[in-house]
Amino acid sequence: MIKITLKDGSIKEVENGSSVLDVAKSVSEGLARVAQCGIVNGKVVDLRTTLNEDCELEICTFDSQEGKDAVRHSVSHVLAAAVKRLFPEAKIAIGPAIANGFYYDFDVEKPFSAEDLVKIEAEMKKIIKENPQIERFELPRNEALELMKDEPYKVELINDLPEDEIISFYKIGDFTDLCAGPHVLSLKNIKAIKLIRSAGAYWKGDEKNKMLSRIYGTAFLKKADLDAHLEALEEAKKRDHNKLGRELGIFTTDEKVGQGLPLFMPKGAKLFQTLQRWIEDEEEKRGYVLTKTPFMSKNDLFVASGHWSHYKDGMFVLGDEEKDAEVMALRPMTCPFQFTVYNAEQHSYRDLPIRYAETSTLFRKEASGEMHGLTRVRQFTLSEGHIICTPEQLEDEFKEVVDLINYVMETLGISEDISYRFSKWDPTDTEKYINNPEAWEATQNQMRTILDHLGIDYVEAEGEAAFYGPKLDIQSKNVHGKEDTIITVQIDFALGERLGMTYIDKDGEKKIPFVIHRSSIGCYERTIATLIEKYAGAFPTWMSPVQAKVLPLSDKYADYANEVVKTLRKNGVRVEADHRVEKIGYKIREARLERVPYILVVGEKEAANNEVSVRSRKNDDEGAMALDAFVSRITSEIANKER
Amino acid sequence: MIKITLKDGSIKEVENGSSVLDVAKSVSEGLARVAQCGIVNGKVVDLRTTLNEDCELEICTFDSQEGKDAVRHSVSHVLAAAVKRLFPEAKIAIGPAIANGFYYDFDVEKPFSAEDLVKIEAEMKKIIKENPQIERFELPRNEALELMKDEPYKVELINDLPEDEIISFYKIGDFTDLCAGPHVLSLKNIKAIKLIRSAGAYWKGDEKNKMLSRIYGTAFLKKADLDAHLEALEEAKKRDHNKLGRELGIFTTDEKVGQGLPLFMPKGAKLFQTLQRWIEDEEEKRGYVLTKTPFMSKNDLFVASGHWSHYKDGMFVLGDEEKDAEVMALRPMTCPFQFTVYNAEQHSYRDLPIRYAETSTLFRKEASGEMHGLTRVRQFTLSEGHIICTPEQLEDEFKEVVDLINYVMETLGISEDISYRFSKWDPTDTEKYINNPEAWEATQNQMRTILDHLGIDYVEAEGEAAFYGPKLDIQSKNVHGKEDTIITVQIDFALGERLGMTYIDKDGEKKIPFVIHRSSIGCYERTIATLIEKYAGAFPTWMSPVQAKVLPLSDKYADYANEVVKTLRKNGVRVEADHRVEKIGYKIREARLERVPYILVVGEKEAANNEVSVRSRKNDDEGAMALDAFVSRITSEIANKER
Repeated sequence: MIKITLKDGSIKEVENGSSVLDVAKSVSEGLARVAQCGIVNGKVVDLRTTLNEDCELEICTFDSQEGKDAVRHSVSHVLAAAVKRLFPEAKIAIGPAIANGFYYDFDVEKPFSAEDLVKIEAEMKKIIKENPQIERFELPRNEALELMKDEPYKVELINDLPEDEIISFYKIGDFTDLCAGPHVLSLKNIKAIKLIRSAGAYWKGDEKNKMLSRIYGTAFLKKADLDAHLEALEEAKKRDHNKLGRELGIFTTDEKVGQGLPLFMPKGAKLFQTLQRWIEDEEEKRGYVLTKTPFMSKNDLFVASGHWSHYKDGMFVLGDEEKDAEVMALRPMTCPFQFTVYNAEQHSYRDLPIRYAETSTLFRKEASGEMHGLTRVRQFTLSEGHIICTPEQLEDEFKEVVDLINYVMETLGISEDISYRFSKWDPTDTEKYINNPEAWEATQNQMRTILDHLGIDYVEAEGEAAFYGPKLDIQSKNVHGKEDTIITVQIDFALGERLGMTYIDKDGEKKIPFVIHRSSIGCYERTIATLIEKYAGAFPTWMSPVQAKVLPLSDKYADYANEVVKTLRKNGVRVEADHRVEKIGYKIREARLERVPYILVVGEKEAANNEVSVRSRKNDDEGAMALDAFVSRITSEIANKER
Repeated sequence: MIKITLKDGSIKEVENGSSVLDVAKSVSEGLARVAQCGIVNGKVVDLRTTLNEDCELEICTFDSQEGKDAVRHSVSHVLAAAVKRLFPEAKIAIGPAIANGFYYDFDVEKPFSAEDLVKIEAEMKKIIKENPQIERFELPRNEALELMKDEPYKVELINDLPEDEIISFYKIGDFTDLCAGPHVLSLKNIKAIKLIRSAGAYWKGDEKNKMLSRIYGTAFLKKADLDAHLEALEEAKKRDHNKLGRELGIFTTDEKVGQGLPLFMPKGAKLFQTLQRWIEDEEEKRGYVLTKTPFMSKNDLFVASGHWSHYKDGMFVLGDEEKDAEVMALRPMTCPFQFTVYNAEQHSYRDLPIRYAETSTLFRKEASGEMHGLTRVRQFTLSEGHIICTPEQLEDEFKEVVDLINYVMETLGISEDISYRFSKWDPTDTEKYINNPEAWEATQNQMRTILDHLGIDYVEAEGEAAFYGPKLDIQSKNVHGKEDTIITVQIDFALGERLGMTYIDKDGEKKIPFVIHRSSIGCYERTIATLIEKYAGAFPTWMSPVQAKVLPLSDKYADYANEVVKTLRKNGVRVEADHRVEKIGYKIREARLERVPYILVVGEKEAANNEVSVRSRKNDDEGAMALDAFVSRITSEIANKER
């Protein structure tokens, strides 16, 4: 007998050699019916996996991510089986479960068409209805290679496996695939599958390899859940900043300019300017001083800071170290520049803390496959800042930074959508990180203490630190559920010394200050993407590129419309008039599509009484209102940054 | 007999073969005594030059630039003669007159020290006192080479001369130099010479050549004029932005960052931000819309715009056309990016004019010898803009641009210091300019008409246009008298078509719009340099990085000082308090050195009465004043941008 510790802490004694399914059954037949896979000592396994020693076991249903993944992974094999039936010449590559679904990559002559997807989906349903046997088996390497000899990608995968790796296969009906699993026991409970789209994808994600044809799909146990998911997907698509941001005239891209280099159109540039001024003013109020430093430098600076040895691959380099007397690089971070500003003057402890802020343009050499909309770009603008302080000031300054970030997130209306990650180094990755284990441990402990004092709820993540110190990352999910870091705060134990930063302490000694690297609103491009998706383009009035639009009922009221515009502009409101000779209904519809917060219709009555007829996004038609009253309302809404 | 037309239009008949000096004598002995050189049909010549046909002649005295140049050029030969006496092993290179003086370059083992300059200057005075003969003679090439055989730089210069060029020499006493002239007849009237400094300079200005030792000097006829000049030079040195800008904490540079890449310190960044916000707001008021476009692009964009063929040498290029799939470049101008924004939407004549504005960062690959302070830099920020308009709108839009520039120059207080230059193409330089003579002529004529309608007083300059069209340049002189272009307005006949810009006209036809390229405040870096020199750092209050400084008489009044700071900040005033334990006289002196517009001293009386004791830059000690009254005064001064 062996002892199995379940998730609720209870212990089951079962016979040595029992399967995960057996344990589930021993709990209840009901659980066994809905179980999809298990987690043994942290490792996801099949229900058919046998247990041969005491262990911890979690039984996973479709409600858990692992359960969903097992179901969808099996459906991805069904997809491959269906493709092989309809396109026998297709070569199969890989087919994992991913967030919200699965994909499978195929090498086919012609990319799959929408009609192909319909046919393949029908074939998949047929296969599921056949309710095929699902079996797992293992083979020695030479037999595995023999079995897969007509599938070159599988052969490559087998050859890539370490010498001592178990080589396992899954057979679903007549379709056999190299696979580490896990898979469900049967397909019979899977009532809802859907192929979403096809796309090109490089073999192993490397643009030097062949472009394969990828099919994305998803699967649920119940049709109602699939429908809800597809509806959410539709909604997400509508909000997707990369689509909506273009439709609203926020940004554009251009083939000639290149990937990862979005151009902000007038409305996007106005939104950018509004956010930038707000942040710069708020930081000034909180004791920051501005810098404005160059976007490039000789590599000497990056050699001194350590970027050259730890970050060079991510940098755009001008010139060739072998050939050129002078090699320059575009900056990927602002730190060495603000440190140079610090070093331009002598400092005493009385000057500290010094809080530098810069709306800073940075460049990173992203691979061409990775670039996307406003979130993965080659050039971006960070609300960058560095606080130079004494050890005694570190905790207070860190708290102040978190307070600023919280204020910014709150004001933007995205504070409920963020989570905190405490990012630590990876002691085994000596290329990525400055190799000073004692300093890493000390600084990470210090940071953990501060985070605990702050009462922040965070997860820890190894291997996500900056090369010079640990980070607090503020994480946000996009409409598709993908998590990105939008803001980071870092404690730096290394660069101050490397770049020769000092201050004269009370005791007359020269000391090296602590440095906090921080942002407040993060990268403007990414934050704007988040805001587009959060508000589906209907930005709060204070940040709307156009805050009000005046629509005269006809030419006769053009003068009054212009007067209204003038009055509003004088009060700092961003307002436009639509003087086109179009029906008023049409003009209102267009202004609504632009998500303008206030539509002001003016005709005879309004002109006579110095009024505007207000249609707000919130309350729709509010009827006529004195112009003065509207001015007070909108200007107070803007001043208070109401949402 | 030949006919000589003098500058006043009068005609002198003189014998064929008369010298310029003879003509001067025929006017008056007085004129002949002060004459230094002549201008025959536009060419500067010696007084000893003989006239052999009818011509126009201007006789130049020291009052003219040509007269000064002749004197100083001769003194540069005296400098070389003195150096050869004291350092016989020195090899001589070239020695021209320049604005305000002259220089001579020498190849010597050891750069000249300050003591060397004193000795050389004394030797020069000795030579002048000797009143040597000055003679001019010509030699055939082989004899010229023989005469100069110990002077390798002269040999190189002779070999560089075209086959049919006359090779002339000037002999001053026992010193003979290869020289095209002109030179004065005698040194006896030169009563005031001065060597200013020595510096390194590459032979022929090319950093690949040997570094020579250059000595700068100047010369006047009267000592009083030299003294006045040296005093002005001292004053200029004090105002020099490259010195004062650093002392005031406006900017710094750093060896590791590299040349031409200044870092704005907090005070400079604040000044920059203040100007930028003002300009962006003013442009918005005038109907401009913002863009924010990337600082780099694939070269495809620059190939399309023509920058690749006409401007590539001035650009920072990332990658190698021969080797890399993708070549990118940092942008030297914003035009193709704003045109891409225009092209992202379809346009009708009803949309025009569209006025795009961007605070735009640009990069130009300046040679390392050319970089200087904030005026010659590799990265700079331009208030860049493009107006897309119909042919009918061109003149009005051009006028609006000039109006905006005049408003900006006036508000900055530098409108009296600027002049206008109408910059045209050079039809012989087909590499620099788009080769379309008809379009050049038509556009230049159009621009001249507009300038004449505007009543602008301009000079014409050939070979100074942009590669795509003629320019109106707004020129400004720095403290050293060097003229720089600070703003340009260009009419573009080429890029609209190259980049496929169109609009649908009233008649339903697709047409190519006109484009005006323009700035408003120019390049911020250069404008800030101009402002530092103009105001010697004592900026008008509205643009001062720190507008007021509160000095408590002692610790006891620290709270009241902080209250004053709070009140002023609430009213948008940039204010600091100096809480250091230092004598009040010392704190006042320091605040004065920082050029703070208002120093507010607070002690017992001020705290009791809610007052501040005001020391203004203008009126010095103004005594006590109610805090409220001071707030009104300074906020109105700021709001009205008073100077």
